[in-house]
Amino acid sequence: MCFSASYTDSSDDETSPRDKTQINSKGSSDFCVKNIKQNEFGRREIEIAEQDMSALISLRKRAQSEKPLAGAKIVGCTHITAQTAVLIETLVALGAQCRWTACNIYSTQNEVAAALSETGVAVFAWKGESEDDFWWCIDRCVNTEGWQPNMILDDGGDLTHWVYKKYPNVFKKIRGIVEESVTGVHRLYQLSKAGKLCVPAMNVNDSVTKQKFDNLYCCRESILDGLKRTTDVMFGGKQVVICGYGEVGKGCCAALKALGAIVYVTEIDPICALQACMDGFRVVKLNEVIRQVDIIITCTGNKNVVTRDQLDRMKNGSIVCNMGHSNTEIDVASLRTPELTWERVRSQVDHVIWPDGKRVILLAEGRLLNLSCSTVPTFVLSITATTQALALIELYNAPEGRYKQDVYLLPKKMDEYVASLHLTTFDAHLTELTDDQAKYLGLNKNGPFKPNYYRY
Amino acid sequence: MCFSASYTDSSDDETSPRDKTQINSKGSSDFCVKNIKQNEFGRREIEIAEQDMSALISLRKRAQSEKPLAGAKIVGCTHITAQTAVLIETLVALGAQCRWTACNIYSTQNEVAAALSETGVAVFAWKGESEDDFWWCIDRCVNTEGWQPNMILDDGGDLTHWVYKKYPNVFKKIRGIVEESVTGVHRLYQLSKAGKLCVPAMNVNDSVTKQKFDNLYCCRESILDGLKRTTDVMFGGKQVVICGYGEVGKGCCAALKALGAIVYVTEIDPICALQACMDGFRVVKLNEVIRQVDIIITCTGNKNVVTRDQLDRMKNGSIVCNMGHSNTEIDVASLRTPELTWERVRSQVDHVIWPDGKRVILLAEGRLLNLSCSTVPTFVLSITATTQALALIELYNAPEGRYKQDVYLLPKKMDEYVASLHLTTFDAHLTELTDDQAKYLGLNKNGPFKPNYYRY
Amino acid sequence: MCFSASYTDSSDDETSPRDKTQINSKGSSDFCVKNIKQNEFGRREIEIAEQDMSALISLRKRAQSEKPLAGAKIVGCTHITAQTAVLIETLVALGAQCRWTACNIYSTQNEVAAALSETGVAVFAWKGESEDDFWWCIDRCVNTEGWQPNMILDDGGDLTHWVYKKYPNVFKKIRGIVEESVTGVHRLYQLSKAGKLCVPAMNVNDSVTKQKFDNLYCCRESILDGLKRTTDVMFGGKQVVICGYGEVGKGCCAALKALGAIVYVTEIDPICALQACMDGFRVVKLNEVIRQVDIIITCTGNKNVVTRDQLDRMKNGSIVCNMGHSNTEIDVASLRTPELTWERVRSQVDHVIWPDGKRVILLAEGRLLNLSCSTVPTFVLSITATTQALALIELYNAPEGRYKQDVYLLPKKMDEYVASLHLTTFDAHLTELTDDQAKYLGLNKNGPFKPNYYRY
Amino acid sequence: MCFSASYTDSSDDETSPRDKTQINSKGSSDFCVKNIKQNEFGRREIEIAEQDMSALISLRKRAQSEKPLAGAKIVGCTHITAQTAVLIETLVALGAQCRWTACNIYSTQNEVAAALSETGVAVFAWKGESEDDFWWCIDRCVNTEGWQPNMILDDGGDLTHWVYKKYPNVFKKIRGIVEESVTGVHRLYQLSKAGKLCVPAMNVNDSVTKQKFDNLYCCRESILDGLKRTTDVMFGGKQVVICGYGEVGKGCCAALKALGAIVYVTEIDPICALQACMDGFRVVKLNEVIRQVDIIITCTGNKNVVTRDQLDRMKNGSIVCNMGHSNTEIDVASLRTPELTWERVRSQVDHVIWPDGKRVILLAEGRLLNLSCSTVPTFVLSITATTQALALIELYNAPEGRYKQDVYLLPKKMDEYVASLHLTTFDAHLTELTDDQAKYLGLNKNGPFKPNYYRY
Repeated sequence: MCFSASYTDSSDDETSPRDKTQINSKGSSDFCVKNIKQNEFGRREIEIAEQDMSALISLRKRAQSEKPLAGAKIVGCTHITAQTAVLIETLVALGAQCRWTACNIYSTQNEVAAALSETGVAVFAWKGESEDDFWWCIDRCVNTEGWQPNMILDDGGDLTHWVYKKYPNVFKKIRGIVEESVTGVHRLYQLSKAGKLCVPAMNVNDSVTKQKFDNLYCCRESILDGLKRTTDVMFGGKQVVICGYGEVGKGCCAALKALGAIVYVTEIDPICALQACMDGFRVVKLNEVIRQVDIIITCTGNKNVVTRDQLDRMKNGSIVCNMGHSNTEIDVASLRTPELTWERVRSQVDHVIWPDGKRVILLAEGRLLNLSCSTVPTFVLSITATTQALALIELYNAPEGRYKQDVYLLPKKMDEYVASLHLTTFDAHLTELTDDQAKYLGLNKNGPFKPNYYRY
Repeated sequence: MCFSASYTDSSDDETSPRDKTQINSKGSSDFCVKNIKQNEFGRREIEIAEQDMSALISLRKRAQSEKPLAGAKIVGCTHITAQTAVLIETLVALGAQCRWTACNIYSTQNEVAAALSETGVAVFAWKGESEDDFWWCIDRCVNTEGWQPNMILDDGGDLTHWVYKKYPNVFKKIRGIVEESVTGVHRLYQLSKAGKLCVPAMNVNDSVTKQKFDNLYCCRESILDGLKRTTDVMFGGKQVVICGYGEVGKGCCAALKALGAIVYVTEIDPICALQACMDGFRVVKLNEVIRQVDIIITCTGNKNVVTRDQLDRMKNGSIVCNMGHSNTEIDVASLRTPELTWERVRSQVDHVIWPDGKRVILLAEGRLLNLSCSTVPTFVLSITATTQALALIELYNAPEGRYKQDVYLLPKKMDEYVASLHLTTFDAHLTELTDDQAKYLGLNKNGPFKPNYYRY
Repeated sequence: MCFSASYTDSSDDETSPRDKTQINSKGSSDFCVKNIKQNEFGRREIEIAEQDMSALISLRKRAQSEKPLAGAKIVGCTHITAQTAVLIETLVALGAQCRWTACNIYSTQNEVAAALSETGVAVFAWKGESEDDFWWCIDRCVNTEGWQPNMILDDGGDLTHWVYKKYPNVFKKIRGIVEESVTGVHRLYQLSKAGKLCVPAMNVNDSVTKQKFDNLYCCRESILDGLKRTTDVMFGGKQVVICGYGEVGKGCCAALKALGAIVYVTEIDPICALQACMDGFRVVKLNEVIRQVDIIITCTGNKNVVTRDQLDRMKNGSIVCNMGHSNTEIDVASLRTPELTWERVRSQVDHVIWPDGKRVILLAEGRLLNLSCSTVPTFVLSITATTQALALIELYNAPEGRYKQDVYLLPKKMDEYVASLHLTTFDAHLTELTDDQAKYLGLNKNGPFKPNYYRY
Repeated sequence: MCFSASYTDSSDDETSPRDKTQINSKGSSDFCVKNIKQNEFGRREIEIAEQDMSALISLRKRAQSEKPLAGAKIVGCTHITAQTAVLIETLVALGAQCRWTACNIYSTQNEVAAALSETGVAVFAWKGESEDDFWWCIDRCVNTEGWQPNMILDDGGDLTHWVYKKYPNVFKKIRGIVEESVTGVHRLYQLSKAGKLCVPAMNVNDSVTKQKFDNLYCCRESILDGLKRTTDVMFGGKQVVICGYGEVGKGCCAALKALGAIVYVTEIDPICALQACMDGFRVVKLNEVIRQVDIIITCTGNKNVVTRDQLDRMKNGSIVCNMGHSNTEIDVASLRTPELTWERVRSQVDHVIWPDGKRVILLAEGRLLNLSCSTVPTFVLSITATTQALALIELYNAPEGRYKQDVYLLPKKMDEYVASLHLTTFDAHLTELTDDQAKYLGLNKNGPFKPNYYRY
């Protein structure tokens, strides 16, 4: 999951939360956060987030009387932000007990962790954990007297791995794992291949709705936002090359074209390349345009897509950034040589200066621009959180035998349900099939509406 | 397959081709066409088509020395047009012997049939066949002394069914069937389910490249073309409702929005509906906008999407047409009642007039607008034809056991190859993976580049 | 004014209308048309046109009781089409007497001329007039016993010139001339400069509303329509160069870009060139891209914009056409040399074939594509006709002294009125200024709302 | 002129610059800035600005040998930013002597003022001047021994007014005034009307190139930037109403539509309203959509466009902001009532909370969003600065009699020249007319290329 900028001020207090007395207003001490007193500020952040997560709130309301998660004991390991808090509080409202920890040592919003702890969720997380803190927090989540988790919600697979390794007896009794990251999913598939996955797991990363929002729709906006906030560049008339025409590349291309940039595309896959042609982009090799472009954006998931040799040939003042999967796409390491000077001109913005005075503007040191220099809209996080909640409900309530010890995609009907919950935000009105039409099409009136291979 | 407008003048000669002496300049009589003398005109049509089918010509050239179809005896049943002729002559150039007939009694371009027959392809087809002629032609294709087909290329499944029923011994020895229509594919799956498909078959209808071109890219242009040719309507400022936001709907929406129309969408599937929202279209029920829209376009594949009740409430001068799968989407039958007057104002354009004088403009009597009132660009037909040729090559050359007695999708690598052959038209240059990158991504440098579930 | 395709069948009768007995059902003989019996068919055409000219009908209704043209005796010389008929019948409804003739020897819709004559308008026009017929018709309009025109509505200036030269005494008593063509306006300005224009004239060609519709909005659609009807070309991925980035060029560029073409622009004016840059088009010299483009479109108003030398370097199969002011932009004459073969493949489509077999597809022999191969939507003609009607009313009713013996632009307030009458078509609702706001802005609540130099 | 965010840290030193010893490294004391020691940091800012102002640098280089401003003594009163510094140093390079002061008490970048003073330009300006400081600085600029200005460059008219009032004898000898603001231009026209303008003045605010960039092109980008930085709102699927369809409104509409918003327009002017229709926007009264929209953006130049009554009816979570001319468009004062709570959630972002908990998000308290919450790209400032420089050159060098004591627009040829200087940034290549073509068009080969009334 991505995370929005935190307002957390971490400068105040150097004492480790592990060394502090932790106690909330109800007298509970079963949590560990930076400063429980920040809980009111955190509560306000959560309330603001709720406004853009009406789908999740609506799910909360619809299912509240049924308590579909009654009896569920969930350990979670995700970014801890206002949006995650809305998810956790939804799970609680549906009947679950939750213990939570952070999947990233930097991303915790301390005030949100405080607000959750104040209401009784056992949160173990703060911004700026050490490696040791990180595992200590995970362990405290899982290993508590008189409470044994039966569901896992994970983002990255660390929690899953910890339980698998340290508490094999607990692991065996887990009813289901929900995992949302590419990495975590990859680890689950490996476990499954090795015959060691003794629990059903659900890969929510690849559900249709989530994918479209995380990639196409989100990046269509964040490429503009990330570039503007860092460089104030004017898009009109700029020549831009976008490496990769997958969902992320398609989003970036569409947005920049719409604002008057002239966009070139590089691709390795002829089908995507042909799509780029039909969408009005010239498909080139990077070397053909490297001397003329003003901006390079990588979105391939590949490595060394922009090499030192190519950076050497770029124009003075050109901008290089990455919207792809990792920080490997631009060969940033190759720029750390004595003849080049680095000048940090703003947060996340470096000028790399060649001996002849040429400057190339490198954003976020080649890390993900959309996460480093933009924010992920709450609405996108709502899609993910709703998907996670439904996956938990599905796995927890599935009749014996529906899911084996394997990795599953979210059932299409649930994918459709996530989408439908988010339609109200747009005041969108679905058409319902008549009985006669449903019969004609051979469909159930309530979906699923498409075969699994449908491409959307 | 769709077909472009024929220049054929069918008015001249009333004698049935079956009653004529058929003989070409080399003395062969193994064909049956309207008028062999039209062959030069047909040849010119074929040459013009070749110019927009450079991918197929390029495939022809690349494979000509290898003759991958040497020994193949192909019976084909498709529309017989200049574009099909380019396909047939490519198959011949690759080593195949071909006998051909028409899959539709109206669509044959007589001069093209003549041109093919003149060069030695055994064509049995003319424009305006009777039902009896149709099956007679198919039979003449299959049932000839000293020649037994080992491959079938079909469009609709009629040829396949005929061989299956009438010549079961021939059918058993067929090495492969290539089928491109929705209907034909459906029939094959049924045969397969029933355990009666004793031959490997390839469903080329659902290959990625073909689907995108037949639906999204083609309809994005033909909706404009079809509306203009029939009604000269100005798009700017018009309110349009598009029923269905699948590939066809997406294409129609994008084109009309780009030209200044205000577009509403109806959908039954929440995922597609959410896509429509994110693309900037209001998702409504048809009844919400029926009184205000200027144009209704159906692209659902469903039936009775526009009912008489709704047609009654439309504005004077509004236009109704269909871009979907069949002629069932608009309930045209309900308009054939005594109180309504029909006035044919142009070819394919009817004014249906209500007692109060209100006129609704119905196009192509609710049949497919893009086929009835527009033309399919040769480039799109080139994609289909190339896909068919590659499917034939694959099935004919596949090692024993690769394909069982079942229905297959075109291998992704071949789908990518079709795309790559068409990139040269756009002077598009693919990037190649380095060894290092291919290893990093876990891919073969030559593809396939995506998992099967990739959505494009 | 442009004109739409005529349904007129001119093949039937070879007798000159001048030699026929002309008499309508009321016994009047004061007209001269091809065949008065076609009047019912013409009436239906007029009724269909009325449906898309609701602004004019609305003007007719609003002003009908006031009869602002009572006493006006108008001679008109325009294309005679169903749309013009709606204009003429509006003028009559507002109190005018009209006599009419054609400004072009080919463009008359005979059945419309018949319908007008049947209702008593004195029309002298038919399709296929000789040069002599043309002037005879004009003279018959003007020179009739007991009737002397006091207003002129002209398109091209021929009628004005005829009256000026032949009937100077009539000319002096004209209250106003309304002229809509570039050529006619040019002639008026020359007359004015020479001090010979003894009558106020109104240049309606340059009114804002008319200009935007004739050029930007109309061409944005007709470029697509014209290209499709003639060549069935697929736009997606095509490389196109558009010469000239004025209103017409802007329309062509926007439409083709929206449909996936890659568009280059040539310009002589740096301001327009900078606009092209900001709109996302590369600004090039024609020679830079001549070898790579698939389509050339000229919209400069200049001559020899595409030379033989450049045509020699174009790709096989490329398309050349003109959307500009005249037929001079492409040097078509240079292609009429012995080494090149011309092949007419469809109406308005020639293949010009080079000795090496290269074909360049020339549309409409370099004449205006939008007029030759597309149709002008009735809505656009409605804008023009309404502008003409208002100009006539203004000149006829203006108090002594408001207009001198000079050429005037339509008052901005009337320009705004034309626009407002057309808003109802789109169900558009204007906001009204409060008294307070009007005072704050220093504007009259009813307009005009902009200074004269405003650029829209 | 607009100004970009300043990096100036004004917190350090409370001593008034007027009380400090001011001396630069060359021993000069003829300036007054915050801290001369910041000059190196300022120099770097200027150098970065130069990179996006290549047009001005190019003008500097072209004219440097001719020194067209030799002898010019220019007093200037503008925002003092890195971009202005590039302008001032260009004027110096062309031969002028310059004394400069700030037109706004907050906008001075202190380090830039220091850098200019270090190189010998007499700058009197700092961030956070008092009203008294402001006029003292202006006076120090004008009133210095042994130096009398002969040119004025003004932004707002304060300097002009000061000279006119206090130094009438100096005023009379001024050769020309260049003014760029709406307000300043208004004051000049008033002076001219009153017969008191004894000096030629040039209105550069209304030059075509500047207008298009300040409004259409700049706002197309800054609306997105301003909304994202303040609210992180997702644009896709949002319903937005834009009040006013002038250049600013057109830019906002185009950008938001392109990113998937559903956009409504309100207009008072039927011509602009019709343009909105043709561009695909529904034209409504604000009250029709006030309950359903997510975002309101005003760009009318009018007052009370959004009233308290309307704000009362908006949805929870909706956003209100202004891109228009002043801070009057939204009736912000009406929101300062006891029953509403204001909550400042970020810089420039207030939540206004109704008694029922409804929040409306008000940006920049109704002031200009693009200036308050976004930055103006240097490229846009380059257009303005180049226009100013050319206006100064033109007025200073114009032969006696070309300009009277009146207010003039920049000659179109110079407007074109500004555009042409900026084309190189885009690697755009102009086409040149042949002699023959120029003659055909009746144009000079070097422009101007359009009549004055041309609308672009």
